[in-house]
Amino acid sequence: MFSGAQISLYPMSDRFVDIILGSLSALDPYRDEFRIETDDVSTLIVGPPEKLFPAMRDLFVAAAASGAHCVLSAAVSRGCPGEPDDPICTPIAGSVHSGSLQDRIAAARDAVAKAQSTGQEVVAQFSLYPLGADHHMDEIYGCIDFLKSSGVFDKSKNFCTKLRGDAGPVFATLGEAFLRFGAPQGHVALDLTVSANSPTPRS
Amino acid sequence: MFSGAQISLYPMSDRFVDIILGSLSALDPYRDEFRIETDDVSTLIVGPPEKLFPAMRDLFVAAAASGAHCVLSAAVSRGCPGEPDDPICTPIAGSVHSGSLQDRIAAARDAVAKAQSTGQEVVAQFSLYPLGADHHMDEIYGCIDFLKSSGVFDKSKNFCTKLRGDAGPVFATLGEAFLRFGAPQGHVALDLTVSANSPTPRS
Repeated sequence: MFSGAQISLYPMSDRFVDIILGSLSALDPYRDEFRIETDDVSTLIVGPPEKLFPAMRDLFVAAAASGAHCVLSAAVSRGCPGEPDDPICTPIAGSVHSGSLQDRIAAARDAVAKAQSTGQEVVAQFSLYPLGADHHMDEIYGCIDFLKSSGVFDKSKNFCTKLRGDAGPVFATLGEAFLRFGAPQGHVALDLTVSANSPTPRS
Repeated sequence: MFSGAQISLYPMSDRFVDIILGSLSALDPYRDEFRIETDDVSTLIVGPPEKLFPAMRDLFVAAAASGAHCVLSAAVSRGCPGEPDDPICTPIAGSVHSGSLQDRIAAARDAVAKAQSTGQEVVAQFSLYPLGADHHMDEIYGCIDFLKSSGVFDKSKNFCTKLRGDAGPVFATLGEAFLRFGAPQGHVALDLTVSANSPTPRS
């Protein structure tokens, strides 16, 4: 199974280059397990599916600590049939997907409850795309049930769900949505936006 | 059929609020046909599927004219079974989807060849997700064939395709990919990033 993400950081500041470069050291603990490639639009990270959201969390929290209004945008993917298997991407442990939709919702909720706080408030919105499946909406509705009980659910929007809270449980919730819904070895994509320090009033 | 997008503009500048607010008038010609709602993360536009990419093009070109490094990010969707039909979203004309994959590739290429230039160079990368289909990779590979002959193809990347050129043909290519691939009344999502004025050297 191939898993990874194309990620971009957008600091809304004249100092955007310094903020981006200054936050990259947050990825250092992941470099041994990840392949990382950057161009002028995004940075590719390829690695174990369980590590993708912790890595994005640490990168984003580092950038947001600048105080600037920052956004992280990512196209996250696992199991794409067009990508070669890569030994760097370990398969998801079977237990993550075992059981009924109800069991997976409960397990995902338990995992989020154990997430450590980071001290950084964020807003996230995302769409989950289980591909190549006849009943993709069942998995999406199951995931939405989990999100509503995650403790960081903000609201449903057209095409996406919005979360709000500390970056710890928010990224844990995103990771659980990505790992536990959709077929275990299936093709699942997730389109993510995370924002911090916005001057726009909460709505 | 319900169609629309959640879009966000990210000017990497201390003047980001002014640049965003200053570009919104570019949406004025579309307001009669669109429903538009904004919160602290994104702006929802709901309207005819054929008008979504022209509207995003005009908004982005207006923001990029500031000279700041700007990014537009969007989650574009049509035919989502979880959304109600909306009279504001007219169905795609049958002719857009009629014919074989080869015929659609040729028609998409012809449409892009007629696109007018805007004078704004952009880079775009995107992923197309035809959902609820057994053979979703066939439509994706067909779309990639079209992209390679679009005149604005830059390169294939993991999880996405990168385009480069004038905003006119680039957004026309994105619109053709969204409209002509995936089932005519099926659920299709497109995850889009468009960038201009980046200080990072082309790669």
